[in-house]
Amino acid sequence: MSTLNLKPMFSPKSIAIIGASGDERKLSAKPLVNLRDHSYKGTVYPVNPKYEEVAGYKCYKNIKSLPENIDLAIVSVSAEHALAVLEQLADRSIKSAVVYSSGFSEIGKEGRKMQQNLTEFINRTSIPVCGPNSLGFNNINESVIATFAPIEFNKSDKVAFITQSGAFGTFTYAMAKDLGFGYNYFVSTGNEAGVDFFDYVEYFAHQENIGVIGGYIEGARDINKMKKGIRTAELNNKPIILMKVGSSQSGAEAASSHTSSLAGNQSVYESFFKQKNIVQVYDEEELVDTLALFNKVKVSPNRGGVGIVTVSGGAGIVMADKCEEYGIQTASLTSETTSKLKELLPPFASVNNPIDLTAQIVQMLDRFEESLNVVLEDNNVEALVLYMQLGDFIAPQIIPKLKQVNEQTNKSLVICWAQPSQKTKDELLDGGLCWLPTPTRTIKAVKNLIQYNEGRERRVQTKNDLTEQKVSEIAAITDLQNAKTEYDIKQELANYGISIPRGALVQTVDDAVNHAEEIGYPVVLKVASPDITHKSDSGGVKVNINSRDEMIDAYKSIISNMAKDYPSANIEGILIEEMIKDGIEVFIGCFQDSLFGPCMMFGLGGIYVEVLSDVVVRKALLSEQDAEDMIRSIKGYKILEGTRGKAPADINALICALVKISEFCWQYRDSIKELDINPLVVKSIGEGVVALDAAIVSQQVKEESH
Amino acid sequence: MSTLNLKPMFSPKSIAIIGASGDERKLSAKPLVNLRDHSYKGTVYPVNPKYEEVAGYKCYKNIKSLPENIDLAIVSVSAEHALAVLEQLADRSIKSAVVYSSGFSEIGKEGRKMQQNLTEFINRTSIPVCGPNSLGFNNINESVIATFAPIEFNKSDKVAFITQSGAFGTFTYAMAKDLGFGYNYFVSTGNEAGVDFFDYVEYFAHQENIGVIGGYIEGARDINKMKKGIRTAELNNKPIILMKVGSSQSGAEAASSHTSSLAGNQSVYESFFKQKNIVQVYDEEELVDTLALFNKVKVSPNRGGVGIVTVSGGAGIVMADKCEEYGIQTASLTSETTSKLKELLPPFASVNNPIDLTAQIVQMLDRFEESLNVVLEDNNVEALVLYMQLGDFIAPQIIPKLKQVNEQTNKSLVICWAQPSQKTKDELLDGGLCWLPTPTRTIKAVKNLIQYNEGRERRVQTKNDLTEQKVSEIAAITDLQNAKTEYDIKQELANYGISIPRGALVQTVDDAVNHAEEIGYPVVLKVASPDITHKSDSGGVKVNINSRDEMIDAYKSIISNMAKDYPSANIEGILIEEMIKDGIEVFIGCFQDSLFGPCMMFGLGGIYVEVLSDVVVRKALLSEQDAEDMIRSIKGYKILEGTRGKAPADINALICALVKISEFCWQYRDSIKELDINPLVVKSIGEGVVALDAAIVSQQVKEESH
Repeated sequence: MSTLNLKPMFSPKSIAIIGASGDERKLSAKPLVNLRDHSYKGTVYPVNPKYEEVAGYKCYKNIKSLPENIDLAIVSVSAEHALAVLEQLADRSIKSAVVYSSGFSEIGKEGRKMQQNLTEFINRTSIPVCGPNSLGFNNINESVIATFAPIEFNKSDKVAFITQSGAFGTFTYAMAKDLGFGYNYFVSTGNEAGVDFFDYVEYFAHQENIGVIGGYIEGARDINKMKKGIRTAELNNKPIILMKVGSSQSGAEAASSHTSSLAGNQSVYESFFKQKNIVQVYDEEELVDTLALFNKVKVSPNRGGVGIVTVSGGAGIVMADKCEEYGIQTASLTSETTSKLKELLPPFASVNNPIDLTAQIVQMLDRFEESLNVVLEDNNVEALVLYMQLGDFIAPQIIPKLKQVNEQTNKSLVICWAQPSQKTKDELLDGGLCWLPTPTRTIKAVKNLIQYNEGRERRVQTKNDLTEQKVSEIAAITDLQNAKTEYDIKQELANYGISIPRGALVQTVDDAVNHAEEIGYPVVLKVASPDITHKSDSGGVKVNINSRDEMIDAYKSIISNMAKDYPSANIEGILIEEMIKDGIEVFIGCFQDSLFGPCMMFGLGGIYVEVLSDVVVRKALLSEQDAEDMIRSIKGYKILEGTRGKAPADINALICALVKISEFCWQYRDSIKELDINPLVVKSIGEGVVALDAAIVSQQVKEESH
Repeated sequence: MSTLNLKPMFSPKSIAIIGASGDERKLSAKPLVNLRDHSYKGTVYPVNPKYEEVAGYKCYKNIKSLPENIDLAIVSVSAEHALAVLEQLADRSIKSAVVYSSGFSEIGKEGRKMQQNLTEFINRTSIPVCGPNSLGFNNINESVIATFAPIEFNKSDKVAFITQSGAFGTFTYAMAKDLGFGYNYFVSTGNEAGVDFFDYVEYFAHQENIGVIGGYIEGARDINKMKKGIRTAELNNKPIILMKVGSSQSGAEAASSHTSSLAGNQSVYESFFKQKNIVQVYDEEELVDTLALFNKVKVSPNRGGVGIVTVSGGAGIVMADKCEEYGIQTASLTSETTSKLKELLPPFASVNNPIDLTAQIVQMLDRFEESLNVVLEDNNVEALVLYMQLGDFIAPQIIPKLKQVNEQTNKSLVICWAQPSQKTKDELLDGGLCWLPTPTRTIKAVKNLIQYNEGRERRVQTKNDLTEQKVSEIAAITDLQNAKTEYDIKQELANYGISIPRGALVQTVDDAVNHAEEIGYPVVLKVASPDITHKSDSGGVKVNINSRDEMIDAYKSIISNMAKDYPSANIEGILIEEMIKDGIEVFIGCFQDSLFGPCMMFGLGGIYVEVLSDVVVRKALLSEQDAEDMIRSIKGYKILEGTRGKAPADINALICALVKISEFCWQYRDSIKELDINPLVVKSIGEGVVALDAAIVSQQVKEESH
């Protein structure tokens, strides 16, 4: 699909409203009333055969009588009429539309058919349609209020918000208002028949008056649009803050019936977002708090910790605890800073971070201001959180000082003023200060800022998305039809540069002995058959064979075991391999995600995976950096580093293997449903890795169960 | 110390105010003004030589001129005069006092001395003194406003709140007001020179008009008071909701300089609170939200899950996700319930939990009410959360129905009405409904309720605190002075009924051979010396000795290794033990906590402890239930249950061993600073456990480093 042009939608010069009601109490009258009351500057064309004039605008009898090339049409007719209306509008060459109507894919089979027709209409005409089942959208700066949502539009900040739940989106709108900011753009994406969540991200990422993009998302529909939207936002330096829901079974099912979106594999989303430096938030307060902070953020030249300054010892303790809980540092102040603070502050005050000024500070406001400057000037401080409480009486003296400190610093100053009066809050916000309401919420938002800054630096330092270029370099896809046994799959992996044990596939006991002597004892024997999946359980595997005699016994034993348990199995032979004794066993897997495509799994083998679920998941392809991040992120990483007197493992070789296996999985993505290399043995530094066992579930087999 | 009588403090018939100011703008005038403005019914005695009358009350020149037996004295003189004033007050036989003055132990050495004197005064006179360094307290129902904190006292619920941070406490007071409830009792405990945090718990637990006790705590000072307060609250069926801070290093240090409390070992607090069914909350919103919920709670006859009913699909998904995240169930509705809902609700509605009524429900309010009743009647539902949003216009019709539903049910109905108008909120609260502001906060509070209910049932079923009775039964403490080597310690453990490997301490190679043959090969040899702590590192241990010859070699090798590395060590002999091959290695430890006394640690051995920190900690003594809870709570528990084809371990024997070792540690608590049994091998079911190695750090050694 070509990229849809969303400018006529969000910045229309003219708007037609199909079925605009003359009864202002009705929802269908709401957009018209909104446009009028917010003094929308463009032309408005209500369409309703019943009226000559509606809400002060000339009314049109029907769509045919409209002029051509109207930028935006608002459609709120019932679902079954929506397409016909859009077809008529297309005849008038409208440039965009929004469909409020519900009754599409969210209601089941019949609705899905209607939505499919709508998608075909959009593909055919290239007219971008927001929705259906959407509350609409707005662009406050240009007074485009194309929604019937009961929102109070009164403030516009450099924030864009995109939501897959209209109701939840309007709820956050109201919460944002409480925090003293407003979304300039707000869009309820509805069922996304044509315009995708990330199309909006892409569009807002191009807008100069937008500094941060927020969103509520149940599931993404198109990986390429997602990547493109995110990449544009990154290039234009617009942070993206997303609340991704549907992590629970019942939540995911509800999402599926809600806007028929697939919640997908939460851990793949998480690692993908982390990789792309998207700020993932986990609740509605964290969402709006983080947006409030990013709306006023300054990017400190220093990476570091949080300076905490309070008038309440208790709040300081809570904030210090939360820093540790959320994995950010409380800044270690330099001795220069603490000496200066000692001079400035009353003797009871604590000059260690968290700094407790004590309530007495309100009697020495110049020292108060100076203390804040001293902390902000400390190179170990990345952001400063000031906790104030009650004390509205002193606010008129304090706030001008805070404003001054804020204007002078190039770091983020965040004011957690607990329970301010409306007047104090307004003064803080009008002074351009960033205000948040509670210690815990403040530190949670600041954590997102600090981690975002760190991620941004990391993204700049590492060459981004090399893997995406690699995609095109990877050779045409062949299939793995013939790779059915462990032997075949390991040969394929070996072709890809993954070490496998020295070995051979033999059909006679004599060949077995010859090869074993060539390889050198001890060896391992494994039956090779596409029909036998649990080789060990039925005596199809013999390990630690140390001599010719043991070899002959083992060979015969496997043959007789198989003859007994699998009389009709097609036995291709016996695989003889060197026995790998030393090293750490890890597991590398791959599975297909409907959105992300092939995804890689990594963990230590055995109990780590089975008992502790210590597994990390990430979308293929992997860059070396991705592979290293994955390896470092598991809890058992210390084992690879060497613990209990053991030598460190060859992590570089493991990184290399993960990257290669991800390329293997990418190349064969149409053939491989699941790949399981378990174990892969990581030897000591410099000695590499060896894939001891590998199994594939092919796409064809799996599709039967769909 | 005798139990202090807090009734004259919280329900005084007469109050003297020392140094009451006539200038109503001053803080020292605040309590007087508060008492007058809230129409305190008792007699008020301001003391100030400067006035004849203050705030309408007759003023006394000095303390001597006061009548005798005044119930409460409020002292806000400077720290250095506080004790003298209290002594004078004692002469007038006052029954209680509160000291606002700061400048005691929180400021360091000099202050600590003054506080010590204060504590001695309290012990000598048995006059309970709140503080020093306290904001005071209040009892709203009796209009006792003995605080200078700038709080708006306007509503009283059956909630008592105790805080070690005055400022943080008043902050939660204001947050509670936002949620529509008020603390009847509020006390800022200050430095707790005489009256302890848990003395207040104990007192409030006896008050009939209190239903729930909340608190902010940095550290407890007295384990016995803590136990007593908690026990009284449990017996009187008053839930305790505590926010325990100081989990981080910098937070704990700040707590220590704040009110000189010791934050202590957070994980011991956590397990102790869990054991005693105290609801531990982790942030300020969770604290007030949980109090708001418990203030209106009904205890459902059903343990089960949460029924979620919404008008927003998005909110439903969020709440379902949060249930899973917080470890509670979304209720599985019976087919009867879903059938009934299908009949009642519009076709687009989702009748699976989370139930999405869709916005259309506001047009069919009778069906709305009936739906709630249907869900509440489902036996799988323990509590119902209803999510409403905006829609103030419909509130006057909806709220009476909610009220009716709430009055008819014996389960908790929680209304998460997002962003209500003040009017809607007031109507909800006036209707006796429990209101919370956001989906995430609501589910977090409901999680606390469900876990509390479950804990309560568990506490009733198991016979509580048996271990506490055991304490007195345990024989007089001997010391472990002579148990310095592994052999000695294991003998002591064996005396306590803990299995150790069969073995003997020998001094000659001939004895070694004789004993080895008696035990049966293979055996293990270990050097026995109080001077050699890392036996393995220096060749002091030989395992898997299979014959007489290997035995002789190993014996000689140990002797020569020791002679080389530890020429001056006192070697008591060589320990010969049977070699235990099969089983799962676990680790049992003990350490001394300054508050809780001996605390037990348990985890799987090796990497589980070292790499994954998969360890659980709990205060000794342990009941069998405690031991079982500990064992089940580690992440690696599945290993003990039997995984990867291995037989399940003898968990009953392990429980028994943990209990016995806790008794051992309790008995020797004055001798043992640390005990480390690592590994203890757990064999298959029915085969018991064996302590393979044990080491003790004695109290004396450790004290040097203090």
